[in-house]
Amino acid sequence: MADPTEHPMARAPFLAACRRGTPAHVPVWFMRQAGRSLPEYRRVRAGVGMLEACARPDLVVEITLQPVRRHGVDAAILFSDIVVPLRAIGVDLDIVPGTGPVVAEPIRTAADVQALRPLDADDVWYVTDAVRGLVGELGGVPLIGFAGAPFTLASYLIEGGPSRDHARTKALMHGNPELWHALLGRLADICAEHLRLQVLAGASAVQLFDSWAGTLSAADYRRSCLPHSAAVLAAVADLGVPRVHFGVGTGELLGSMAEAGAEVVGVDWRVPLDEATRRVGPGQALQGNLDPAVTMAPWPVVARAVREVVQRGAAAPGHVFNLGHGVLPDTDPDVLTRIVELVHSLPVIPPSSKPVESRTPG
Amino acid sequence: MADPTEHPMARAPFLAACRRGTPAHVPVWFMRQAGRSLPEYRRVRAGVGMLEACARPDLVVEITLQPVRRHGVDAAILFSDIVVPLRAIGVDLDIVPGTGPVVAEPIRTAADVQALRPLDADDVWYVTDAVRGLVGELGGVPLIGFAGAPFTLASYLIEGGPSRDHARTKALMHGNPELWHALLGRLADICAEHLRLQVLAGASAVQLFDSWAGTLSAADYRRSCLPHSAAVLAAVADLGVPRVHFGVGTGELLGSMAEAGAEVVGVDWRVPLDEATRRVGPGQALQGNLDPAVTMAPWPVVARAVREVVQRGAAAPGHVFNLGHGVLPDTDPDVLTRIVELVHSLPVIPPSSKPVESRTPG
Repeated sequence: MADPTEHPMARAPFLAACRRGTPAHVPVWFMRQAGRSLPEYRRVRAGVGMLEACARPDLVVEITLQPVRRHGVDAAILFSDIVVPLRAIGVDLDIVPGTGPVVAEPIRTAADVQALRPLDADDVWYVTDAVRGLVGELGGVPLIGFAGAPFTLASYLIEGGPSRDHARTKALMHGNPELWHALLGRLADICAEHLRLQVLAGASAVQLFDSWAGTLSAADYRRSCLPHSAAVLAAVADLGVPRVHFGVGTGELLGSMAEAGAEVVGVDWRVPLDEATRRVGPGQALQGNLDPAVTMAPWPVVARAVREVVQRGAAAPGHVFNLGHGVLPDTDPDVLTRIVELVHSLPVIPPSSKPVESRTPG
Repeated sequence: MADPTEHPMARAPFLAACRRGTPAHVPVWFMRQAGRSLPEYRRVRAGVGMLEACARPDLVVEITLQPVRRHGVDAAILFSDIVVPLRAIGVDLDIVPGTGPVVAEPIRTAADVQALRPLDADDVWYVTDAVRGLVGELGGVPLIGFAGAPFTLASYLIEGGPSRDHARTKALMHGNPELWHALLGRLADICAEHLRLQVLAGASAVQLFDSWAGTLSAADYRRSCLPHSAAVLAAVADLGVPRVHFGVGTGELLGSMAEAGAEVVGVDWRVPLDEATRRVGPGQALQGNLDPAVTMAPWPVVARAVREVVQRGAAAPGHVFNLGHGVLPDTDPDVLTRIVELVHSLPVIPPSSKPVESRTPG
């Protein structure tokens, strides 16, 4: 496949930071930058269901471009949802406003797992169509493709929807490891294929979202989830694009998540990036980690927090500025634009001048 | 005030472990042990609202005793809710089934904060009545009184109800520190008085629940919350009963929470207790930390996990076995009884034989 050094966007700050090079400025994008914080998004989505929007390439292109136009972020992220590939293989689910994904028939048995068929390119034609359209529109701005990680997808499928305690998921994980690994293995294949299709259509990077991994102890994560996330990441390694791996509340898991093999480990706001670098080790870049709620504060507070994130991020071998989780719907988009301007104005401290301590158990 | 060594229940395993002595067996109780997992609880609560139940001493006594009778736990915890003292001073709130506490007029202004008057003994007569009734019934089993910590109470008051992101709370915290500290100062006074009243009525220990502290970065926690939680704990120090301090997802905060001054730091399931001891230091006992979801697994899985918690807990200077969060409503109560039996059957490893490393920044 393509040699990364020959990639037409190899000088893009986002890709340089992911590859632990020295970007022209600290790159910045925001998880959920394409979303409800933008009035232009709310206009386009009026009367259009979430899954319907995800299945219309024209809307996906428009919504994905909106934050790039408005904020001048260093990367676009494909507008979609982690359940899109599940819906695409025929799982009866919907995204209910105010609730989240709701699965009509939660997975309980081996037969339910067997019914999850592999993902085929035709199943997600609208995704790859949108990616191809976006690559033309985005010019030098990298597009990040994405997928939900097997554990997080499994949680939705088993619980039937969002869950605070993930009790049924963990009950299956602890009570029937064979079925658990069969399920996560199938989901890993689906995730991997979904990411491959996005990269082959032109995405410059991928992010694997394991939103709920932080609900697990490190021992459970390592035994029950890490092998499957690692398999997803390994399945796209040959494509030569940076892989970002993110979850929320994963302070205890950062070392384990780093082992899954991504070039970039995403960090939520609970662990300062210099500490995260100690846990992840010197071989991987970090992404994060401004508390999304801080964007609601007066600008001087935001600016101080942004500067601190950039300063601590300089301890990492590469740093992509982001929030520590998605943009909150009530965020003032002008604040996000100012954050981009501020981050871009700050000096880049080359990682080589920042020795990083060796990895410690975390 | 009373000398702790002269307390009539000084040999109770729960109190011995809290005081870093050597209990006859590893003590065990469960957060939310008095609750929906018990059929006898559901019967008593049928047709009775949560706040109504909390305000009826007869029901509080009965519900508090139920898990002691059934499981043989080493401590009772007063059946109540963290919003009870707020309701008692006139805050218009209710506990909505399936949602949680809902506040009619969320706090926004200095006048709203001013309106939070101090708690008076008469406001919570039904709590102290119940405590007095329980002390007679419980014999040698210690009763734990409790209160919500200022931050967690503030979050409910500001958000108007449960929140996933605590955005308004953090916006006030970052945007108006003066109002923030005024609010948390008043709440600290209310919490402290509520705990004092319970102890003076006969409670043998207290637990300060800071359920949502884990949503904060360590820097924000230290600056904005720790002083107020420390004030609450300090205000009951002279009463000579062990103080337990617990929050969820607090791996990054354990060292800071330990500084608040409780004898026992509660730990959720994400941080193994031996690691938690390194973060908390040698001067405090630990409480925890079986993942509540593990109780849904087949018994051999539960038993293995229980043994591991006890083994790791032996690294702490004192260990009170508990779940890492509250009992899930669907938990089979027979499993909880078996856990108590198993924990009681395991040998106690004296803390003195387990050298603990000195405190590291956590």
